[in-house]
Amino acid sequence: MIKIGIIGYGYWGPNLARCFSEADGAQVAAICDASPEARARAAKRYPGISVVSDPQEVMSDPTIDAVAIATPVRTHYGIALAALCSGKHVLVEKPMTETSDQARRLIDEAARRNLVLMVDHTFVYTPAVRKIRELVARGDLGDIYYYDSIRVNLGLFQRDVSVLWDLAVHDLSILEYVLGDQPVAVSANGACHVVGTQENTAYVTLFFGSGTIAHVNVNWLAPVKVRQTLIAGSRKMIIYDDLEPDEKVKVYDKGVTVANSTEQIYQSLIGYRSGDMWAPQLATTEALRTEADHFIACVRDGETPITNGAAGLRVVSLLEGASLSMKHRGGPIDLDVMRRAS
Amino acid sequence: MIKIGIIGYGYWGPNLARCFSEADGAQVAAICDASPEARARAAKRYPGISVVSDPQEVMSDPTIDAVAIATPVRTHYGIALAALCSGKHVLVEKPMTETSDQARRLIDEAARRNLVLMVDHTFVYTPAVRKIRELVARGDLGDIYYYDSIRVNLGLFQRDVSVLWDLAVHDLSILEYVLGDQPVAVSANGACHVVGTQENTAYVTLFFGSGTIAHVNVNWLAPVKVRQTLIAGSRKMIIYDDLEPDEKVKVYDKGVTVANSTEQIYQSLIGYRSGDMWAPQLATTEALRTEADHFIACVRDGETPITNGAAGLRVVSLLEGASLSMKHRGGPIDLDVMRRAS
Amino acid sequence: MIKIGIIGYGYWGPNLARCFSEADGAQVAAICDASPEARARAAKRYPGISVVSDPQEVMSDPTIDAVAIATPVRTHYGIALAALCSGKHVLVEKPMTETSDQARRLIDEAARRNLVLMVDHTFVYTPAVRKIRELVARGDLGDIYYYDSIRVNLGLFQRDVSVLWDLAVHDLSILEYVLGDQPVAVSANGACHVVGTQENTAYVTLFFGSGTIAHVNVNWLAPVKVRQTLIAGSRKMIIYDDLEPDEKVKVYDKGVTVANSTEQIYQSLIGYRSGDMWAPQLATTEALRTEADHFIACVRDGETPITNGAAGLRVVSLLEGASLSMKHRGGPIDLDVMRRAS
Amino acid sequence: MIKIGIIGYGYWGPNLARCFSEADGAQVAAICDASPEARARAAKRYPGISVVSDPQEVMSDPTIDAVAIATPVRTHYGIALAALCSGKHVLVEKPMTETSDQARRLIDEAARRNLVLMVDHTFVYTPAVRKIRELVARGDLGDIYYYDSIRVNLGLFQRDVSVLWDLAVHDLSILEYVLGDQPVAVSANGACHVVGTQENTAYVTLFFGSGTIAHVNVNWLAPVKVRQTLIAGSRKMIIYDDLEPDEKVKVYDKGVTVANSTEQIYQSLIGYRSGDMWAPQLATTEALRTEADHFIACVRDGETPITNGAAGLRVVSLLEGASLSMKHRGGPIDLDVMRRAS
Repeated sequence: MIKIGIIGYGYWGPNLARCFSEADGAQVAAICDASPEARARAAKRYPGISVVSDPQEVMSDPTIDAVAIATPVRTHYGIALAALCSGKHVLVEKPMTETSDQARRLIDEAARRNLVLMVDHTFVYTPAVRKIRELVARGDLGDIYYYDSIRVNLGLFQRDVSVLWDLAVHDLSILEYVLGDQPVAVSANGACHVVGTQENTAYVTLFFGSGTIAHVNVNWLAPVKVRQTLIAGSRKMIIYDDLEPDEKVKVYDKGVTVANSTEQIYQSLIGYRSGDMWAPQLATTEALRTEADHFIACVRDGETPITNGAAGLRVVSLLEGASLSMKHRGGPIDLDVMRRAS
Repeated sequence: MIKIGIIGYGYWGPNLARCFSEADGAQVAAICDASPEARARAAKRYPGISVVSDPQEVMSDPTIDAVAIATPVRTHYGIALAALCSGKHVLVEKPMTETSDQARRLIDEAARRNLVLMVDHTFVYTPAVRKIRELVARGDLGDIYYYDSIRVNLGLFQRDVSVLWDLAVHDLSILEYVLGDQPVAVSANGACHVVGTQENTAYVTLFFGSGTIAHVNVNWLAPVKVRQTLIAGSRKMIIYDDLEPDEKVKVYDKGVTVANSTEQIYQSLIGYRSGDMWAPQLATTEALRTEADHFIACVRDGETPITNGAAGLRVVSLLEGASLSMKHRGGPIDLDVMRRAS
Repeated sequence: MIKIGIIGYGYWGPNLARCFSEADGAQVAAICDASPEARARAAKRYPGISVVSDPQEVMSDPTIDAVAIATPVRTHYGIALAALCSGKHVLVEKPMTETSDQARRLIDEAARRNLVLMVDHTFVYTPAVRKIRELVARGDLGDIYYYDSIRVNLGLFQRDVSVLWDLAVHDLSILEYVLGDQPVAVSANGACHVVGTQENTAYVTLFFGSGTIAHVNVNWLAPVKVRQTLIAGSRKMIIYDDLEPDEKVKVYDKGVTVANSTEQIYQSLIGYRSGDMWAPQLATTEALRTEADHFIACVRDGETPITNGAAGLRVVSLLEGASLSMKHRGGPIDLDVMRRAS
Repeated sequence: MIKIGIIGYGYWGPNLARCFSEADGAQVAAICDASPEARARAAKRYPGISVVSDPQEVMSDPTIDAVAIATPVRTHYGIALAALCSGKHVLVEKPMTETSDQARRLIDEAARRNLVLMVDHTFVYTPAVRKIRELVARGDLGDIYYYDSIRVNLGLFQRDVSVLWDLAVHDLSILEYVLGDQPVAVSANGACHVVGTQENTAYVTLFFGSGTIAHVNVNWLAPVKVRQTLIAGSRKMIIYDDLEPDEKVKVYDKGVTVANSTEQIYQSLIGYRSGDMWAPQLATTEALRTEADHFIACVRDGETPITNGAAGLRVVSLLEGASLSMKHRGGPIDLDVMRRAS
């Protein structure tokens, strides 16, 4: 039985507490939050569990094996480092850290101490994204042409990060998982319409060596909620709508057929294919529950998580590149150069 | 009765012929197309009208007052110039020309000869876009935060232009009409996935001096057709979905309210407003019919069209800027510098 | 080349004229309407064709082989009978006649003279309904449990018929074609909310010997247009939405599995199946064009139309039964008794 | 502080327990269920609360003021009667009882003992239905023409009741609340497709003296979930879609305008009005929480619940009438006669 401490009981922490308390093989041993109101809610919901205000109390408890961190981004590095130094396995909320340097130091610390370091890239554990990865991996879509996502809604403005670090991180983690490829360049731009906050609207374009292009449109100031992604390949195309109750993933047998001979190319002979649409049945498992089970298994068996520290670092690096480009109104950033520099 | 020659009877020309033949005060006097098949279709549909293969035959007919040009983009300049030099008023398909230099020369020629030069920015004449302009102009939306459009579908690949010049031109002409403001910079990127063609996927971001940001996502290789635009202001927000049969424009009384005092700003006090939604009744007039009537009135009364040569030039200049940025993977183009250079 | 006269050039007649004028093997030879405005529109659209005011002029023209009748329902019988007696093949708008007696007399007359008598049950010729029939016929759905349709919109109120005879007729003709089975009883009710008109809202339930139940909800006074049909079988279920631009027919691998053993039945052991959804690619052919080609082929080759007089009669009989039940607020009508009585 | 016992902890009971435990002024004092698994779940979720297997244990506890009953329909009467006889206030799940006789006896018993008897007609407490009632009550819709509801989905088959008693009951309770009028006749039909169960598909039509007609389409065997209601009046029309996340109620300024003079009526002069659509902002309060607060207030202050025993009885009577008609394939039942007979 793995004993887990939950650090942060604001918006996401209660979900972590619920999933770990229901999971087999684990037990929530402590909940920590600086806010008295949050602690009161935790105490009412989990009468038998220790509720504390200082993360240090969790770190110094030798019976606790692992911590799940759901605090503001700027505190991720400090708390995760303290946890690793206390010999605890770590599951940390996305984005992993504020900088790629911090992410690298956590990876090193975890490696040295042989501890599990996992990042909560929740969408990677949804049945929809897993199905999409399966379809892409076995070549059903052919060569991937583009990934185009819109992820907008009204609120919640974050204090310490822009909409890029809050919402685009989801798409970057999905891309990382589905494509299994790293972009070579990024161009991003955005705008801030509320004084005293960071960008609430942002657009990111990623260029891959394979010719794939990815585009992510994120916005905290939209009148309706949209979660829609188009993924097109040379053979098939996908629409992934996360708000659809039943048919989240639709696979279209549509596309263009290009003539092969030089002569025909000069004539721009393009034929359109339009065939059946198919919506595969998806499991109804809750993503965070799947993720909790995976974390428990990694801790127990010493395995490497799917969304390990390296995956978290890659996403943070992309966010850094995009943020830099956004300061230059879309001026492209060469990610290979950035990687070599680090 | 104004006599009109239709030049080009491919995809769009039949619509021009139909609208001008039904309009009061005008008469289609000639139809011209280089393709025998197109001429056969025109002759069958309009038995009493002269159908010719060479635009020169239209130009040299002294009874023809005006021409409507719906030929490939690369021929717009030559045909429009010949028509103006023959003393004919001109309605030319979007985009107006291939370069802003060409657009300027047409504007000069029309001015010198006191002829009407109008560009077929069709969306400007739709009841939906006119309603949106009305709402923006009278301040219902407050300060405009952003315009965010997605305009994607499968096909048709154009031979001589990229998706930018084929689809984004619609949004640029809508923006030009609705905002009444010119952007100061543009960043664009895109990708080409079919050998022998130009970009089939493109993303354009426009920056305005007012703080407004506009983003346009266009794609010829999408599994479904989407025509959706979000427009948000400090007071209200709009969703404009051109595929909705009845409620194309929805106005949301939603937004954020920001605290005014410095103290509160430091606390990032943002409140969310969520009120009624309202879908105004729109006229059901066909846009092209409204546009044909407007062209006829301008020719008859010597008035300046809403979408005159200057509007066409502004849109072509933006396309040039976006195309240049796209070559540099989003590197921003200062449009004021471009304008001064021309 | 079969020469066709179009009788009636109001709402539907222009579509018949267009489809027959474009079809191979046929030629529109005359158009007839009592209204001067309708005749003016026809003359403008078809300059070379004879436009007359009296159907008798069409009947007495020996060069005309067939007529297509799109006049008010109360005139169908008289005009169709006159046409048959003049030796012309007949395509008549739905519903075929006002009474089943009239329908029977037309069938007899056509049989005696060896002429084609076809009813314009347009939906039978749509790619969507043909695909549904194909799926049902080859057993993909298993035993058919129910057909449940909603067909509502605002207007147009008909002068001489209720919404039952105007809209429900579509569903009855689809049912007739898809199931290939005749109901044994009908229960219907409805309401009239506008003085001086017939029922604008009606509900029809049909009972089949097989256990299938069919329900049709039609309404001329609905704020939005809905055209949605659910068809469920023991193996699969269908949603047919005629307003969907691309995916009109969706096939769901969903249902219940019932235990077989007596013991289990007592325990009401019902399992739910939930599998993939599949939307077959449908042809984009216009239904009326397919129907015109079919009528031409039947006239030319002496074949029996799919929607022949007998099919038209069966639908009229159901409308009579439903109208009778509607007068008794849903009191059921035994259709076998009605059939024997006629 | 009112102490409440929850009887039945299957599908709905946990919701009652949650709402009453969160509500001010109440406290869940006991939970009762015959199933050991249900009791285990209750005990895990509410560690401090007494969990028992026999309702009698709740009845005989003098500290308990009220019970909320969420057991199978066939047990409602017995448990509710026992609770009233033990001096407890009662909130009972819908439908109130299996027969109107039982309902009447409960009403009498509650009246004699001066206890609150409330039926859990949950939809009456939703912000959407309350808004609709408000619009109808203040005459915004004009004369009500019809109420037309479709409420279908896959499962869950009930053992002891038909889909009529399980799903149609929702619409009957909404109608009762929104119209404030009682129907004079009912016609219903349905079908059973699974051996050993009751009707899984049913259609109910209600006739009102005012000319209003109501139709309810319920189905346990549909491939998708639909919860859509059209309500039309002489002035405005409503679409109420309970599955819409934000705009559940849309009000359309649409309709027909009928000419007044006799002469015009003979000409069937009907004009169509088509105006704006408006979706009022709705509260986001959970219906069951509102209902729990209302029950607590009624118990505390001795007030009569909105959905009191009489409302429950009226709904049960309609279900009896509809069930009777369903046995006769839609043969109409005169509800006034039924009411006088009881």
